[in-house]
Amino acid sequence: MPNHEFYMDLALSNAQAMKGQTDPNPLVGSVIVNDNRIVGVGSHLKAGEPHAEIHALRMAGELARGGTIYVTLEPCSHFGRTGPCALAIIEAGIQKAVIATLDPNPLVAGNGVKMLEDAGIEVVIGIRREESRRLNEVFNKFIVEKQPFVTLKAASTLDGKIATHALDSKWITSEEARTDVHQLRSENMAILVGVGTVIEDDPSLTARIPNGRNPLRIVMDSKLRIPLQSKVATDGLADTWIFTSQQYDRQKKTELERLGAIVIETSGKERVDLDDLLQYLGNHSISSLFIEGGGTVNAAFLEKGAIDKVVLYFAPKLIGGKQAPTFLEGSGFELMKDAVELDHGEFTKIGKDFKFTGYPRKKGEDS
Amino acid sequence: MPNHEFYMDLALSNAQAMKGQTDPNPLVGSVIVNDNRIVGVGSHLKAGEPHAEIHALRMAGELARGGTIYVTLEPCSHFGRTGPCALAIIEAGIQKAVIATLDPNPLVAGNGVKMLEDAGIEVVIGIRREESRRLNEVFNKFIVEKQPFVTLKAASTLDGKIATHALDSKWITSEEARTDVHQLRSENMAILVGVGTVIEDDPSLTARIPNGRNPLRIVMDSKLRIPLQSKVATDGLADTWIFTSQQYDRQKKTELERLGAIVIETSGKERVDLDDLLQYLGNHSISSLFIEGGGTVNAAFLEKGAIDKVVLYFAPKLIGGKQAPTFLEGSGFELMKDAVELDHGEFTKIGKDFKFTGYPRKKGEDS
Repeated sequence: MPNHEFYMDLALSNAQAMKGQTDPNPLVGSVIVNDNRIVGVGSHLKAGEPHAEIHALRMAGELARGGTIYVTLEPCSHFGRTGPCALAIIEAGIQKAVIATLDPNPLVAGNGVKMLEDAGIEVVIGIRREESRRLNEVFNKFIVEKQPFVTLKAASTLDGKIATHALDSKWITSEEARTDVHQLRSENMAILVGVGTVIEDDPSLTARIPNGRNPLRIVMDSKLRIPLQSKVATDGLADTWIFTSQQYDRQKKTELERLGAIVIETSGKERVDLDDLLQYLGNHSISSLFIEGGGTVNAAFLEKGAIDKVVLYFAPKLIGGKQAPTFLEGSGFELMKDAVELDHGEFTKIGKDFKFTGYPRKKGEDS
Repeated sequence: MPNHEFYMDLALSNAQAMKGQTDPNPLVGSVIVNDNRIVGVGSHLKAGEPHAEIHALRMAGELARGGTIYVTLEPCSHFGRTGPCALAIIEAGIQKAVIATLDPNPLVAGNGVKMLEDAGIEVVIGIRREESRRLNEVFNKFIVEKQPFVTLKAASTLDGKIATHALDSKWITSEEARTDVHQLRSENMAILVGVGTVIEDDPSLTARIPNGRNPLRIVMDSKLRIPLQSKVATDGLADTWIFTSQQYDRQKKTELERLGAIVIETSGKERVDLDDLLQYLGNHSISSLFIEGGGTVNAAFLEKGAIDKVVLYFAPKLIGGKQAPTFLEGSGFELMKDAVELDHGEFTKIGKDFKFTGYPRKKGEDS
């Protein structure tokens, strides 16, 4: 007899399959089991259309009665465009509900569960909790904090270098890894670099994959040193926002704006203020931010505790060099015990390279 | 019907099981199959005792006739303490021989195969070649080059740092990873560090595991700056050899020797000459060397092309710091295309940490 995890994995697969088509709603999947047979499967397909549970209940029909429903996210309890799913579950005669994770919004988390329990339905919570949370990691953060979910990306040799001492960096990783980066760019609403990267590499920061969506381009540039002929300022392939500090060059701002860039002043006296930046992005509905900075920009976000996810590509190479730059510089933490711990870390192979994904533990969080 | 790989994997498992008890002979396993049934299994157990093929042939008895023998290493063709295995295979009436890899010694490689083929036996070579070679990687190098097999070990954060900018390094990795290091120390004949490590950390460099064998301790110290009260010079837990350059302190040498250390002068004018060091170790039958140097020592071996294997422990942590030391410093290579490529790289989980194992590609080798 398959177990809870088996059915929840199926629900997760069905949720995952709709990636990219449910915005701004989260991905949700549902499975209904009765007498050890699957009698209903559903996914949320598109905002404004029925939730996953409703599709599954419709497929099950009368067979929902006495059955168990698996849902990757707590059923809603509010009367919105589609009516509360918890009520539909109760009315269908479901006996047991297995839920991966509660609603991310702490103001309503538990309400759906309470509605089910009040109706006498047995509720099990937490099966594949982490998997379900990660499925909607961007949504979960943005809905609660109104700030973008921040992913730090870097590509280095195994000794952590992003270039040689002579600053040669082409190429560290394989084409497969670089294609994967373009995929991630396409999935993020904005991509951020420091002005140093623009000056040195003049990247276009676009998603060069079939059907790739170019993210908004963000440059952190405290003095507006960005070259007027740089691709991000001139190629028109995506919008470019330049965040600056109080010491920016007024004349340059006018010139950049004439080229179509948007220049945003932050409260930082000498450096771009990261809180202002993240707040501004949140206010403008930018729910995901992909950081491809050099070591200084990356360290600024790390030391601020502003990184939600880390994606590192490691080429199986060693380059060495005391002067060779690494992907995390700045001053760094002073004591090893203050290092940022990464939870749920895993390595996967991608082409010849290795991809690490992990989640910085927030202060006060348990592992 | 199981395939060649299936039987060779069984032979490899039987070879591997004898790790540590066959020295100075290599690990070898053998399986005999007749009419789709396994009729014989054998391993080389101990130097001076029968080879793996002989044990397998004895177990098979008359059922060897017409069968297929799997051997992880080319059967020997010389009349040594045990008589040539190739001849025993022929006399037993074996019809087909599947061999993982040829004899590592190029002077005799192929002789066993030739003897089998001359007798009309069909020979297949190369099934699980890499796995078999790695099983005896130390033996394979030493028997041919008379120099130690060199393993570089480092433990760092994911951004490649072995300490914070303030040089705090305790602890980067988990206890499980550190225990694994002690296991590797115990499996190597010698362990090498730079004098900087002795001055900063005063390590004892012993294998602190049950039944752990302490390796010979080697310190690279061009001027003999090693403190006279350091553990490696005084604790007597293992022998300590100190390699130095032409500019060493004569008085200090006498004092170190009085403490029981052996001081070896190399031809290097200002730095320890690595060729001399490796040659000296080879001449003294040190077949395996484990490098736990800091970034400078590690880089010296890397740039010299003297590393045969790399074992890296990564803690899922980020520390940052432009001034924080990494495990590979020195000047490093100038162009990314000159980076040392690591073949057969793989990550495994060990406690909370990740362990990478890979093999530096030698110049002129294909991937």
